[in-house]
Order: sequence, then structure tokens, then C-alpha cells
Amino acid sequence: MTEALALHPDRLFPAEERTRGIARDLYDSVRDLPIVSPHGHTDPVWFANNDPFANAAELLLTPDHYLLRMLYSQGVPLDRLGVATVDGKTASDPREAWRCFAEHYYLFRGTPSRLWLDWIFAEIFGLEIRLSAETADLYFDRIDAALQTAEFRPRALFDRFNIEVLATTESPLDTLEHHRAIRESGWDGRVITAYRPDPVVDPDFPGFSDNLRRFGEMTGEDVSNFGDYLRAHEKRRAAFREAGATSTDHGHPTPFTADLSRPEAESLYSTILGGDFSAQDAELFRGQMLTEMARMSLDDGMVMQIHPGAHRSHNPWLLQEYGRDKGADIPIPTEYVRNLKALLDRFGNEARLTIILFTLDETTYSRELAPLAGHYPALRLGPPWWFHDSPEGMQRFREQATETAGFYNTAGFVDDTRAFLSIPARHDVARRMDCAFLTRLVAEHRLDEDEAFEVARQLAYDFVKQAYAL
Amino acid sequence: MTEALALHPDRLFPAEERTRGIARDLYDSVRDLPIVSPHGHTDPVWFANNDPFANAAELLLTPDHYLLRMLYSQGVPLDRLGVATVDGKTASDPREAWRCFAEHYYLFRGTPSRLWLDWIFAEIFGLEIRLSAETADLYFDRIDAALQTAEFRPRALFDRFNIEVLATTESPLDTLEHHRAIRESGWDGRVITAYRPDPVVDPDFPGFSDNLRRFGEMTGEDVSNFGDYLRAHEKRRAAFREAGATSTDHGHPTPFTADLSRPEAESLYSTILGGDFSAQDAELFRGQMLTEMARMSLDDGMVMQIHPGAHRSHNPWLLQEYGRDKGADIPIPTEYVRNLKALLDRFGNEARLTIILFTLDETTYSRELAPLAGHYPALRLGPPWWFHDSPEGMQRFREQATETAGFYNTAGFVDDTRAFLSIPARHDVARRMDCAFLTRLVAEHRLDEDEAFEVARQLAYDFVKQAYAL
Amino acid sequence: MTEALALHPDRLFPAEERTRGIARDLYDSVRDLPIVSPHGHTDPVWFANNDPFANAAELLLTPDHYLLRMLYSQGVPLDRLGVATVDGKTASDPREAWRCFAEHYYLFRGTPSRLWLDWIFAEIFGLEIRLSAETADLYFDRIDAALQTAEFRPRALFDRFNIEVLATTESPLDTLEHHRAIRESGWDGRVITAYRPDPVVDPDFPGFSDNLRRFGEMTGEDVSNFGDYLRAHEKRRAAFREAGATSTDHGHPTPFTADLSRPEAESLYSTILGGDFSAQDAELFRGQMLTEMARMSLDDGMVMQIHPGAHRSHNPWLLQEYGRDKGADIPIPTEYVRNLKALLDRFGNEARLTIILFTLDETTYSRELAPLAGHYPALRLGPPWWFHDSPEGMQRFREQATETAGFYNTAGFVDDTRAFLSIPARHDVARRMDCAFLTRLVAEHRLDEDEAFEVARQLAYDFVKQAYAL
Repeated sequence: MTEALALHPDRLFPAEERTRGIARDLYDSVRDLPIVSPHGHTDPVWFANNDPFANAAELLLTPDHYLLRMLYSQGVPLDRLGVATVDGKTASDPREAWRCFAEHYYLFRGTPSRLWLDWIFAEIFGLEIRLSAETADLYFDRIDAALQTAEFRPRALFDRFNIEVLATTESPLDTLEHHRAIRESGWDGRVITAYRPDPVVDPDFPGFSDNLRRFGEMTGEDVSNFGDYLRAHEKRRAAFREAGATSTDHGHPTPFTADLSRPEAESLYSTILGGDFSAQDAELFRGQMLTEMARMSLDDGMVMQIHPGAHRSHNPWLLQEYGRDKGADIPIPTEYVRNLKALLDRFGNEARLTIILFTLDETTYSRELAPLAGHYPALRLGPPWWFHDSPEGMQRFREQATETAGFYNTAGFVDDTRAFLSIPARHDVARRMDCAFLTRLVAEHRLDEDEAFEVARQLAYDFVKQAYAL
Repeated sequence: MTEALALHPDRLFPAEERTRGIARDLYDSVRDLPIVSPHGHTDPVWFANNDPFANAAELLLTPDHYLLRMLYSQGVPLDRLGVATVDGKTASDPREAWRCFAEHYYLFRGTPSRLWLDWIFAEIFGLEIRLSAETADLYFDRIDAALQTAEFRPRALFDRFNIEVLATTESPLDTLEHHRAIRESGWDGRVITAYRPDPVVDPDFPGFSDNLRRFGEMTGEDVSNFGDYLRAHEKRRAAFREAGATSTDHGHPTPFTADLSRPEAESLYSTILGGDFSAQDAELFRGQMLTEMARMSLDDGMVMQIHPGAHRSHNPWLLQEYGRDKGADIPIPTEYVRNLKALLDRFGNEARLTIILFTLDETTYSRELAPLAGHYPALRLGPPWWFHDSPEGMQRFREQATETAGFYNTAGFVDDTRAFLSIPARHDVARRMDCAFLTRLVAEHRLDEDEAFEVARQLAYDFVKQAYAL
Repeated sequence: MTEALALHPDRLFPAEERTRGIARDLYDSVRDLPIVSPHGHTDPVWFANNDPFANAAELLLTPDHYLLRMLYSQGVPLDRLGVATVDGKTASDPREAWRCFAEHYYLFRGTPSRLWLDWIFAEIFGLEIRLSAETADLYFDRIDAALQTAEFRPRALFDRFNIEVLATTESPLDTLEHHRAIRESGWDGRVITAYRPDPVVDPDFPGFSDNLRRFGEMTGEDVSNFGDYLRAHEKRRAAFREAGATSTDHGHPTPFTADLSRPEAESLYSTILGGDFSAQDAELFRGQMLTEMARMSLDDGMVMQIHPGAHRSHNPWLLQEYGRDKGADIPIPTEYVRNLKALLDRFGNEARLTIILFTLDETTYSRELAPLAGHYPALRLGPPWWFHDSPEGMQRFREQATETAGFYNTAGFVDDTRAFLSIPARHDVARRMDCAFLTRLVAEHRLDEDEAFEVARQLAYDFVKQAYAL
């Protein structure tokens, strides 16, 4: 039995008719605004080469850790989903993987993945029946056929999605050649990079010593001393700025920051370089580097993003067999008030600096993040992230952060995704949920209607451009 | 002045008429499904002997820690409620206790106890006016009269409640004689046991050494060494399996787990046996035993339940005067990501194992539990427990867990109660609240209606049978 | 462009028409009840002298840390807002400060400050257009003119606000002269004090040694020994009782309590007096003094309030330049179950004692506070405080605390404000939100309508009088 796939025009709006009318009007006013995607993990090579995407499974399933996670949790082996092991073996071919996914599509009921995928199926590929075991091949073939056509090439989709600017994220060790290729291609899509220095900042990062060595080679700096190491960062930041970057990104286990004296920092750096460092040394170095990065941001104007609080690769067997980013990262309790103090003591009062805070620990919205962002000029709140980039997650964020931080200390929507096709779907969910929140304020006479329209536009478009200096 | 007692057929459904219609339809489809109660604390002797229950106070008030807690918090001495002191004195007779309860019934406004009790009064005893000081005697007499009749004997109520299976919880030291009596009685009600080894696993359990000694005697094992101690568990687990058990239950202070080498575990066990152990030793032993229990579960197929995070008997004066389980257990912050790691590193990838996690710390729903259950094949989420087994608690659970764990990593409803008469009321609240949640998804076009009906049935009936292997 | 300012009569009520009708009826029944304000920070000199208030900026902007916080977070220097530096310089005159505020009034969209201020503007000053850059002068002039008139003097406003009793908060070192002046003035407004001993109890309080010295002088006690130090407290408590006090208030960093033996406490006091104490000593002393205060409360009947969990003056630069209470206090995670244990072990079972607990950590509502208050006779829950004194904050409190603590272990509404003109607005928000919560219970048939009316009145008026012994 097959069921219709139809996106309801009023999805995610409150059910009550009069209130829904307000939501509709607000949403109509922002629906067609361009997409600004200031932070994410799409691959610049797509836009540099503009090659066709491979097939449904490799495009939509295998790289999506939200999907792998859920399917794996219900006993589906990653082999069946076409995920390669670290030694490169892939047990399932793409069509088989897709069929397995389709059989289990019911698992995503009530999750944001379902909303995003249904949008992709209906809006991008024009599918009109629901994905299921019965329709798996139909989907696979229809998507396959579409991907062969010019309209489904990366640049064509970028234009069709009405993307004004899209940021990717690169390591300091990246040559940025794809971004150069994009700029030199004559195509007018704006794809920029962002500076994510974890591989050369986090002593626990895989391959840290080798990374440092290459960092020195790329920059011509003698990274065996702290001063030159910092200069190497400055040089790469300048190169990233040339490739359009307006932001840096820091994925630390905690938001701990430090502000050591120069001799202390130099000595710590030596310890780290020596390789015989404790977990505490590593944490201290990461914390010191956040403060150094803030200092550099004051000079070069780059916005800082801090994404803390994930226990990466919680499942050692999975890491060993299939590698990172397969859905085994788990949030941990995160503390901001004491952890950020060193950095804020130094730079928190700088209105020229923008640090955007993210969290995987929702308890911090009302307790820590909104009070901090509602006071320090240097702070802004990023939108709900990762597990919380979902209708309920967005509602909780607005309900818990707005009364203390206001709307104006928030940074607009960030999709943070590697799933390129889902970008419009994610922005659409965010716009709908923000309009639904504003609708409630209007319906309960907590905000005037003219103000709600202004804020709706700011949440959908203006704030993100301001916060990310785009 | 007396007021009517009338259960509204649409209770707990959203107020808006069109939406309420969806809720009604969903609920109608699950209302009459049999009750599966896979975990609780009813007394098997009730069903073995089928004697009449005593009276309203001894049946409904004195054993209910939810009621004692609230009344005590408002200055009502436990003596007045007919609660015996540890040396056996009871100050108030049942009718007096009931009157005192009735006078204070208004205290339960807005609490789940009120919902459960009103259901019991109206549906089981046919009462049509609200409980109050004025109606206390009427209630007492009406209930008394009913309890003398055959239709109010335990087995008759069991049948009337449409219970398909009911699990009680026993210590390894229990002879299981009542379960044997039930099976041999010819009555066809399915009452099974569950294995709760805390008395011989938790070194801080009252009477631990004596318990161990009896554990050895019952099993014929020399529990002075770790290997035979584990074998004693295996024997009792086998006996429990014969008495129908499909699950074990672990009520530890934290979900800490350990995976020691065999010599380390043996050495720790010796330390514990010696009696001169630290709090840390006790925690380590409990943690090690969770991993041992998981190993045994892989062999015998028993589902593990972990119920962590209660500070038991927080009030020492009350404990001394009246004993345990009088409403003085208080939740504490609970951490799962690091605590469960040893067990998950060992067995988390086993799809044949089911570990059902419960919590008293709601902050872990979206931060830890849903991400863990949304990844590890061995994990499922238990429903809201204890303080959170309530309409708002259930709503928060679905709102905070579903988007990351989905519906399919949850384990259906568990009443976990010793209040036998409240079982249908509790399942009714759960079914209504789950339907209300699904209703919102349907009304906001986040889930198709055909899917909502399927999920409603799964939440009410299928999931619990699957999760508990019933 | 100017927009109308109009308070909607149904503001904060649910939008759906039938449900809104219930809310309207409930609210109508409590709207005109007198205001009981049992705890706050208004200045008694206002009522003693009855001088006119200065101007819009000095009355409504400069002392309001909610406003300063938000404006500062968006880069507005405190100088521009007329805030004096610690050395007394004020860069901006009141009208300029007001204009700056008006320009940025949009920042408060969606915050409770906006609700309170609009109420003040519309209800007290009769303004009918929204505050903005264009209307800044009109507002300033209109408010200025009003403040010159007799109807806007403090006592006249007190009467107009229908305040039955208003408590201020004083240090033990306060002479209470203004309260004496009020009592001797012949004016019949009831303005009472409350005992806030932090300056002589918290070793980390600025000027602690000097404070202790003056404490000894005022009481004629030799505060160099613990026994006389306690006696000094007893004397000041008695003096405060004469000035109407029915409560004490304790603003500690944590709710840690201790119950040392007398020799231990004496020894600790000596260490503290010696000045060479650790952070742990200071915490232990504060904890011990909470227990001592509880003991005194059992004697003199004063209700204890505990307000823990703020990291005060998180921004050292701001503290140095502008001093305390400028919006840089940030909540931290707070633990109650273990921290309160020493005090509760000693006095938790005393029904004659009332300890009202507040929190800035909402995660404790359902996990710790409701279970504690739902058990211990000595405990009551204060309403949402500070950052959480807001519509969403109030809704979360009722949703998360009621099912476990009931309504009857809560203490009514406390405005806790120094912004005198906002008092009726804050009580109005609380009454509306409580009615909205009750409305949902009624609409979903979780509470009968007659009970909702009774509870509405209790939440608005009765509970606070009972809890604070007024």
C-alpha cells in the first residue's frame, strides 16, 4: 500500500484557525527571502567542479549521521546502509542500501529528518507518494534520473535554492583550492570558507603533531615556538579572509577559556609540543587558544563560533570499524559561566567582537546563555544546534532564551549541515517555527503585529547577516 | 457542600474543538487494548490467595507514598493517616485516617494522584460525588461494602481491568511461592515476577551481609568467592525465568557501570565481603554488577531495567520512626554518558540485548538519553517515571525525546506501581497523553494521520510487549 | 511613525476563544484583590519622606538592572544611560539618557520588561502611543509633569496601587529610621522591613569586618565570640520584628547548609574573624548560619527566604567602573538535595517553620524543589525569580512544580523589585499567567471549575499571606 506524500502549506503552524492565520501572514512575508547559510559543512568541491551527484543513497543516506544513527539504533548494520568500513569495504550497493533505508523510513516519524527528507523528495524531486519498501525503487530511479540532468548539478541547485551566501568549513591545513576554483570559474554563486583550527589547536585531535608540522610548512613559520605558532594562525586567517571567510569555528569538548601570561602560555605550548601532556594541559591549551583567537578576531574582524559539549565517538567499536561522524557523538552537560570567564574578563566588553555561542545542553538556555548574552556586548546566541535543530528544539530555544536575551542577542538561523539538499528544508522549518513563536506572542497580545513582521524578517535574514558580518 | 464527581470523556485532550476531534479518534482506537504492565510492585500474594482487600484507608491511602508525601508536607502527621511506626504502633484507625485524607483531598488539585484516585472512585466504585470532609464516611462505607463482594477480589479486578500480563518485582531471596501458587491455582491471569537483585548486589543495602548468606544458602553456592556468587545469580535468574520473569531491575543511586578484569572484580568482591569498603568501592561493585548482569542477559534473554537517581530516605527522622518508602526519596542530578560507557563499550552494540533506561532527571531526556538510545542498539528509553509519571511529565518526555530517539527507541508505558487499583487509571492517562501528543503532530502536519493511528497502538500495546519480550 | 500603545484586556490569555473565556472569568475574580508584596527592594525613604520622584530616566531607567543589562549587551555604553561611575561621574543628562533608551526600546520585544513598562506607561501615565525615538521627549515631558503632582507622590501611588502590605529589605546595620518615620507619620500604608543579614553573615561580603564591628556597636554585643554574635542577631531580629518584619532573606551563592557542633562553630567563627579563611571556610560559615537562622526562626516566627545561585558581578571591569547591580549577575547550576540536608535533618520536620526556596536554575523545579517541598513540612516554593519572573518562566514553574508539589506548597507571588511603579504590572502578569495555567487545567478537565476559582484566589492573595505570616 502506498500513501500520498504532500507537504501541507500550514505545516508547523498552530492548529487553531485564527492563530494559524497570523502564522500564515508572518510566514508569507519571509518565505521567499534569500537563504543565508553562514556556517555548515558542505563540500566546496561540489561547486568547484559542478559534477553530478552520484545516486540517492550516496547523496542522501550514507553521509547523513542523523539517518545512520537512528537506523543503527534499531539494529540495522551499517554495512547494509552502504557505509564503508575504515579499510574501505562496502557490503551493500547503493540500491540495496536505499531499499534498506526505505523499509525503515517509519523509524523517522516525529523526527526532523523526516521533515527535511519529505521536503527534498516533494520539492526537489517532485515525488508524490511516501517513501516505503514498496516505493524504494521508484524513488531510487526517479532520483537517479534527475541527478543526470543539468538542473540537478550543484550550482543549479544552489541558484534554485536562492542561496545568497553559503559558508563551508575548512581546516587551516586546507589549501582552499576549491574556493579559488569557484571564484575563478566565472559562476556568481557566493561560497565562502570558515576557519576551523581544531586540527592544529586541540592537542587531542587525531594527527595533531603531523598537523602542526604541516601548519609550519604551509605558513613558513617555525611552529616550535608559541609566537611563531600564533603568527602561523594569523597568516592562515588572512588567507581564509581572502577566500571570503568572515568567521572562525571552534569545536571544543567544553567552553573552557584561559588567559595565561605570555611566559605561562609559552611554557604550556612547549609541554604540548613535547607530547607528554596531561588531559588538563590539553584543556588549558584549548582554553588559552580561544582567548588568542578572540584577540585575533578583534584585529581581523572574524566572528568566533564556539560549538562545545559533544562527547565525540562515544562508541569505540564503531569508531574503529567505521570511523568518525557515524552518529555516535553524545552531548554532555556543559557549563558556560565559569568556563567563559577568562575570555570575557579580557574581551567581553568589546562591542566590536562577536562570539556566537552554541550548546547541546538546553538547560543552559535560560540559566546561563541568555543571561550572559543579555549582558556582554561581545556575545550572541547561536540557534538550536544539531540534536536541537528541530521544531520542538527551536520552540524551547525561543521560549527559554527570548525573555532574558531578547531577539536581538540571537544570531539568526544556521543550518550547520553537510546535507546540501536539506538546506532549504532546514531554513524553511526555522522560518516556520520562528513565525509560530511570534504568532503566539501576537495572539496573546505580548507583541504588536507590526513588530512581529519586523522581527520575523530579522530572524530569517537580517540577524544572520549582521552577526556573521556578511 | 458536595460537588459532582464526573470524569469528562475528553479529559487531557487539547481544548480546541477540531484538534480534540483528532485526539478522540486516536484514543478510541487504543482505549480498549489490553493492559500490559511489565514492571511494578503489586503483591503477588493478592493474586495467590485472592482474599478481599481490607478497607479504603489500608487499600488506597496508607501504602501510597505519593499521598503520604503530600499530606505530610502540609503538616499532617503520619500517625493521623494510619501509618504504623517501625515499632508497630498505629495511632489512627482506618476510618479516622480516611477522614483526615478526605479533609485534605484539595491538596491534590493539579496532581496525577487526583486523576488516578478520581478514576478509581468513579470507575471502580461508581461514586458520583467528590471526596471531601463531608463525603468521607460515604466513601469509606461504599468502598467497604464493595470490597466484601466477589467482584472486588484481586483476581476479579485483574480480569475486569483487562490485564494481559502483570509483572511484580522480587528479591533473589524471595521463594517465589506466591507465583507458584498462582500458576498452580488454575486461574488464568498472567502474573509474572522480575529479578531485582539490589539486596545482594548493593553493598549499602540494609542487611547486605545477611542477604548474601541467605543467597548462598538458597542457591547452594559458596558466595565467598566471586565466581560462585555469579553462579548463584545465574541460578536464581533461571528460577525467576521459570516464574515467568522476562526482566531484571536495578535501582542504583547512579547509572555508573564498570568493566573490571576478572582478578580486579574478584579482589573488589573480597573487599566488599570483608565489610571494610569505601563508598567508592560500593559504587564500583554496583557498577561492575550491572555489566555482569548485562552479560547474563545476553545468555538468558532477560531485559535489563536501570532505575537510577533517587536519594533514598532523605529524611533520617522519618526513616527511623516510620521506615522506608514514606515519600522521602528525592531525585538527584544524574549523568548517563560517562556512567554507562563501560557497559556500552562492552555490550552497547548488541542488538540482542535490551537495556531500558529510566530517569528522575528530566534534563537528560534531550541531552543524554535520547542521543544514547538513538544510537546504541542495546538501549531503549523507559517512559516517564515516578514523579514524572504525570500529564506534564509525559508531555515533556515526548517533546524532548522523540525528535532524537524517535518513537521506536521507547519502551511503551510502565506503571511501576504498588497501587493495584490505579493501574488502569495510569495506563489511561498514558494513552490519553500519547494520543494528545500525536494529535499535535497531526494537527500541525508533522505526521500523517494513518501513521499516527499506527504509532498510537504501538505506544499503547506493541512496544511494551516487544521491549519486555512478553 | 508612531504606533498606538494599547494594553489588550486579554493579554497573556490563551488565544482559542472558548478557553480564553475561562481565563477571563478566572482573572476577573482576582484582578482587584489587594496587592501583597512580601519581599522586595523598594526604598523606605520614599514612603517616609513622600518626596516626588525625579524624572523618567532616574525613576524608570537608571536603577533598573534589567534595562541596563539589555542595552549594554547591544553596545550601548552605560554613560549614555545616565549611570554614574563609582567615582560619581555621570556623562549623560536624564533627558539624553531617556532618548537613548527610547531609541532602543525595540530591544525589549518579547521580554517581561516590555510588558511591565508598557503597563506603567499606559496605566499610570495614560500614554497612548508607543515609546520610540520619535516619542521620547513626549514621554519624558508627560512623565515629568505627572511626577510634579500630588497623585504621583509615593504614598498616593501606594494607595492607588491597592497595596495591602509592602516589605522592603534591610541590612542588620540599617537603623530602620525610615520605617519608624513611616509608622509615626500617621499615614496608614503598611510598609514593613525584612532581615537580610548577608553583610554580617557572608565573610565574602564587601566590608565584612567593618560590618561586624558596627554590628557589635549597634547591639552592644561583643561579637568577637560566637555566642554574643548570635545574640546580636537575636537583638536585631527583635528590632526588625518591631519594624514589622515577618521574614528574613539570605542571598548566598549556594543553598549549602551545615549543622556543626557548638565548639566547631565557635572555632570556625574564630577563623573567619581572623580573616585568614579559605573559600571553603566562608561557605561553611554561611551554611552554618542558615541553620542558626532557622533555629532563631523557630523561636521568633520569622519566615526564612533563601535566594541562592547567582554569580554576582561576573564582569570585573563593569564592577570596577560602575559598581554592583548593573545587570552582570549570572545564574549558576544549583543543587538543593545535598546542600539543604544538614538544615533539613535538623529542622525539616518542623511544621511551625517556613523556609521559602527560590532558584535561578529551572532544572531544579521538577527534579529537586518540588519533591523536597512536596515532602518536608518546613519547605515552601517561592515563585519564579528574577530572570524567570516572566510569562514563560511562570508557565514553566507551574507546569514543572505543580504535579509534584501541588499548589499548596507554593508561596504566592513575590515581585522582589526595586522598581516601585512596576509592582502592579508584575502582580498583574502573575495573576494572568496563573489564571492561564488554571484555565488549561479546566479546559482539559484536569481540575473542576469551582476549584480553579478557589485556587486562583489562593495563588493571588491567600498563599502569600499565609506563607509570610502577614
